[in-house]
Amino acid sequence: MSQNKIHKLEPQIYYYTFGPNEPALTVSSGDTVVASTRDARGYNTVMQPIPEELKQRSAATAFRESNPLVGPIYVEGAEVGDTLAVHILRIAFNRQYAWSRHNPHFGFFTGEGPGKEMFLNEPIPEKLFDWNMDFQRNTATLELPNSKIGKVEIPLRPFIGSIGVAPRYGRVEMSLTPGEYGGNMDCVETKAGTILYLPVWVRGGYLAFGDIHAAQGDGEICGVALETTAEVTLSLEVIKGKSIEWPRMEDETHIMTAGSGRPLMDALRIAHVELIKWLIDDYGFEKWEAFQVTSQVGTTRIGNVVDPNYTVVAKFPKQFLP
Amino acid sequence: MSQNKIHKLEPQIYYYTFGPNEPALTVSSGDTVVASTRDARGYNTVMQPIPEELKQRSAATAFRESNPLVGPIYVEGAEVGDTLAVHILRIAFNRQYAWSRHNPHFGFFTGEGPGKEMFLNEPIPEKLFDWNMDFQRNTATLELPNSKIGKVEIPLRPFIGSIGVAPRYGRVEMSLTPGEYGGNMDCVETKAGTILYLPVWVRGGYLAFGDIHAAQGDGEICGVALETTAEVTLSLEVIKGKSIEWPRMEDETHIMTAGSGRPLMDALRIAHVELIKWLIDDYGFEKWEAFQVTSQVGTTRIGNVVDPNYTVVAKFPKQFLP
Amino acid sequence: MSQNKIHKLEPQIYYYTFGPNEPALTVSSGDTVVASTRDARGYNTVMQPIPEELKQRSAATAFRESNPLVGPIYVEGAEVGDTLAVHILRIAFNRQYAWSRHNPHFGFFTGEGPGKEMFLNEPIPEKLFDWNMDFQRNTATLELPNSKIGKVEIPLRPFIGSIGVAPRYGRVEMSLTPGEYGGNMDCVETKAGTILYLPVWVRGGYLAFGDIHAAQGDGEICGVALETTAEVTLSLEVIKGKSIEWPRMEDETHIMTAGSGRPLMDALRIAHVELIKWLIDDYGFEKWEAFQVTSQVGTTRIGNVVDPNYTVVAKFPKQFLP
Amino acid sequence: MSQNKIHKLEPQIYYYTFGPNEPALTVSSGDTVVASTRDARGYNTVMQPIPEELKQRSAATAFRESNPLVGPIYVEGAEVGDTLAVHILRIAFNRQYAWSRHNPHFGFFTGEGPGKEMFLNEPIPEKLFDWNMDFQRNTATLELPNSKIGKVEIPLRPFIGSIGVAPRYGRVEMSLTPGEYGGNMDCVETKAGTILYLPVWVRGGYLAFGDIHAAQGDGEICGVALETTAEVTLSLEVIKGKSIEWPRMEDETHIMTAGSGRPLMDALRIAHVELIKWLIDDYGFEKWEAFQVTSQVGTTRIGNVVDPNYTVVAKFPKQFLP
Repeated sequence: MSQNKIHKLEPQIYYYTFGPNEPALTVSSGDTVVASTRDARGYNTVMQPIPEELKQRSAATAFRESNPLVGPIYVEGAEVGDTLAVHILRIAFNRQYAWSRHNPHFGFFTGEGPGKEMFLNEPIPEKLFDWNMDFQRNTATLELPNSKIGKVEIPLRPFIGSIGVAPRYGRVEMSLTPGEYGGNMDCVETKAGTILYLPVWVRGGYLAFGDIHAAQGDGEICGVALETTAEVTLSLEVIKGKSIEWPRMEDETHIMTAGSGRPLMDALRIAHVELIKWLIDDYGFEKWEAFQVTSQVGTTRIGNVVDPNYTVVAKFPKQFLP
Repeated sequence: MSQNKIHKLEPQIYYYTFGPNEPALTVSSGDTVVASTRDARGYNTVMQPIPEELKQRSAATAFRESNPLVGPIYVEGAEVGDTLAVHILRIAFNRQYAWSRHNPHFGFFTGEGPGKEMFLNEPIPEKLFDWNMDFQRNTATLELPNSKIGKVEIPLRPFIGSIGVAPRYGRVEMSLTPGEYGGNMDCVETKAGTILYLPVWVRGGYLAFGDIHAAQGDGEICGVALETTAEVTLSLEVIKGKSIEWPRMEDETHIMTAGSGRPLMDALRIAHVELIKWLIDDYGFEKWEAFQVTSQVGTTRIGNVVDPNYTVVAKFPKQFLP
Repeated sequence: MSQNKIHKLEPQIYYYTFGPNEPALTVSSGDTVVASTRDARGYNTVMQPIPEELKQRSAATAFRESNPLVGPIYVEGAEVGDTLAVHILRIAFNRQYAWSRHNPHFGFFTGEGPGKEMFLNEPIPEKLFDWNMDFQRNTATLELPNSKIGKVEIPLRPFIGSIGVAPRYGRVEMSLTPGEYGGNMDCVETKAGTILYLPVWVRGGYLAFGDIHAAQGDGEICGVALETTAEVTLSLEVIKGKSIEWPRMEDETHIMTAGSGRPLMDALRIAHVELIKWLIDDYGFEKWEAFQVTSQVGTTRIGNVVDPNYTVVAKFPKQFLP
Repeated sequence: MSQNKIHKLEPQIYYYTFGPNEPALTVSSGDTVVASTRDARGYNTVMQPIPEELKQRSAATAFRESNPLVGPIYVEGAEVGDTLAVHILRIAFNRQYAWSRHNPHFGFFTGEGPGKEMFLNEPIPEKLFDWNMDFQRNTATLELPNSKIGKVEIPLRPFIGSIGVAPRYGRVEMSLTPGEYGGNMDCVETKAGTILYLPVWVRGGYLAFGDIHAAQGDGEICGVALETTAEVTLSLEVIKGKSIEWPRMEDETHIMTAGSGRPLMDALRIAHVELIKWLIDDYGFEKWEAFQVTSQVGTTRIGNVVDPNYTVVAKFPKQFLP
């Protein structure tokens, strides 16, 4: 194998879709990519929006200004049926500011966006929240003028909200949607130190990512996390001949699978079926014994309950693996 | 307005996606289109499959062989914010044969296709069913060799399984998926005599259709109806300046709205919110009075509970309209 | 068998629970019962509420004023494992007035009653609706002062909202809840002319009923139908040695099963599994052939999507039975 | 206040229902209760089943052999509208053996018990698992004869599976069902060190408990945890004039609310609405600010996805409280 390279990617365009779009970069297995993301609304480190001409959706005829993606990155040697291992090496904030918002038509108390109204009563009021980050203290602070506490200061726990490959077929309608290709899973587990395994369905894989969250609770229940930007460092590795069906993850303590779907129960079931398959295939568990042990030691993290698909992460502690 | 024309469309290509693909035909508002569909697996009137080179998905790099569509049809004068009225004039069978199937990984007892497994137990067995149609008797007959009754003969009730326009953004990943653009709603209401109203989100509308069902029960619970082909006659009319958010329908007896989503309750809610909006906007109902009357006289038909989105039709009897 | 009798039941007490409460009446198989119900809020034909001392819940220590029941009726000879066939012979209105209501905390746009709040935004406003019945015209009329139409007149289609037996175990917490014992299914199919089959889980069966609806749309979406009272005539028949698991029904055109549960999809699945079992057991269908035919000719009616369990009726046309 | 007492409760009878049954013990606020539980199938420390005559359901005419409860305990001074604080002081195992099981008709891949079948395919196979506990090592070990790993040893994390008060109305049909009264929540948070707050809806509260789990994964996905027995020590305290609607909990690090319902999303919503109410009422948060902060720092634990109601615990870190 040739010597691994470090690529600095300066995006010339931002896609609002996962798919085999014109690659922004071509790399080899083992290479490292460093790139700065835009935030969920397209703002950069100094809060300038993406110029219109740099916004792209699948058909170049329409777009939706949510979760612009850096990439796609074409990984040489990634063939259909391989797995792409994404080592998340570093997520370095590059602005001191994050925002969140309550939307009348987004979030787990309402529906899933304009035109998908599911209720007749008045929706929740729109409200914007400014979170200020302090890198010395490694915290974000929000003023709470209407609450007794006055303000709240919470630890920074950055992760990548949206990261995925080209889907099995065509393109994903919106980068807002998670699925078997990963995408907008909004899982706190896609943090520095995690290896994310993604299926390769299109030659080259076409990895794209964005939507850095400085912190987020389980489920992203209001629909919006602490939205910010960061310089992200990923190392990409092709695992030849290893085929998976859904995103898998691994950190120091757990192996994990992410299932996305609706209703929430389906996402939960998918994640667990995939976790049990993993235990069978790679760790020599018999199916029902894997189910029994997972039932007793497995944990679950709800990624999001607000996106067009909900995401659930099923986790199995490494200490109980052979 | 110029004199209306009748267009005979002979498809040169079949798309597996709804979207602003290269139009197969351009028509004016008021024109009529006549076209023969392929069945859900791509077979024509003599059960020949679509040649590979005529199959197209959004990116031409991948495809999925389900519900090939005739079209898209570009309707001149259809602008964003207009409504496209599709008068379903005639659905004339052109083969005597329909098939159905039980799939291990499709249908309301399992999940929604390969790679989306949600259970650990054995799925239902795959099984193919040949239904023979008799146009004299207007029936379809299925041999039931393992049942006491021996065979069953049911009335033909043809309708268009998949019909829709280009979606709000980009393309639909699979023609299998229904949504605000219509699509694979699998509703028995899209039959001859119905006017289907679809939102125009892209100039020209880009109407496409296919997937004729000779008959189907509510919900299409096994995942597959009596799949066949037909010559379909539609008349297309642009309603200028009339904006809708979801498909609406009208037949002799009812006004109807189709909501698609997951879980089933969300589809039900969307359909009813849209129906009540219609009652308010076009018939002068006050919101809560519309809700009360709909609660007492409205009916509901479950289109499908098997596709990536489920579809519910909310129906309001015309006899109670002003 | 002894000669069948007609029993006129004048309730001395009203239960808000299904279960083996002190019988109001003991009858033989084949006997007929005539009784006048109270409405969902406990009002009689002249809108007098039930006196406090006549209200009873399971433990006599608490009650909930919704759906008071007439009965229970102990049917001699009904043993565990039998089926109780309830022939609904007549539902004769005995007052000219029905009411409906929008509740802030009940109905399919909100939650399921006080203390079960699921949203942070403002609920829908409370509103009462007075429907006047005209027995000459066989209609109910509602003034719609805020709508262009001014008023609406709809046909009367009376049915029994709540009817059931003692459950498998203990008592049902609230008569508001439907289940395997029947109960508050709110299905328009429990109308005059229908035979309702209920499982016998406790010797005597303990049939109880109430909650007459003068009309109702599918799903009872606002949570309240046209609530009224009637004199109900039922004939009760014990089918010995016939064991069923969920309510079944039969009218001139269909055999039907009612599944109750949450989410809506589970009620739908239960109803269909039971329907297919019925086709297998009583009509000689093979399982997968039953599934296929049901998929093509079955219809579905949503009873309610508002009660603690939702109810779905799966219907199979009698014309396709052997 | 009188001096607090320690009561040793030796059950003479076991109820399979939560409700105002004949109290096994009457205590004062501040008193401590020590009692040994039976396991989920009614076995004691030496694996002897409960004698038939000691089994009781609400009506004494039927029972269901799952989750027999110790109690109820009548707490003097507990009036409707008060809160009962249950300090879980100690859960001391008193046998070395736990079992788990896969049931064909229970668990999140199937339905919810016999008679509630929702699928046509073959259910998962029944299988029993024997877990041996080692109190020196504080672990439980399961032989895995069919898996490469051979056996697995997991830490003991005991908690009370079922604990609740008399419900708002009547009795709970089965102790298997969780709800606003607590009950079979199967939440790992009801462990030693936690204070569980329960609403008082009936004078005396009528606390009952049982179903000790030696360990359990999130969701109890196979339907059965490490079922065992323990001697449980609880201290009970009446909080006068403090009214709550759902169970609340508190440990060293979090305040928590438990919502139970179906579908899973409803349980999730209920838990969060209750958590936000708590933040408003006791900690001076403004509603939307509470929602925002919870969205960013809240976590969620899925208690069970197998019981007649699912249970979700919403957690807020104490470090962010005033």
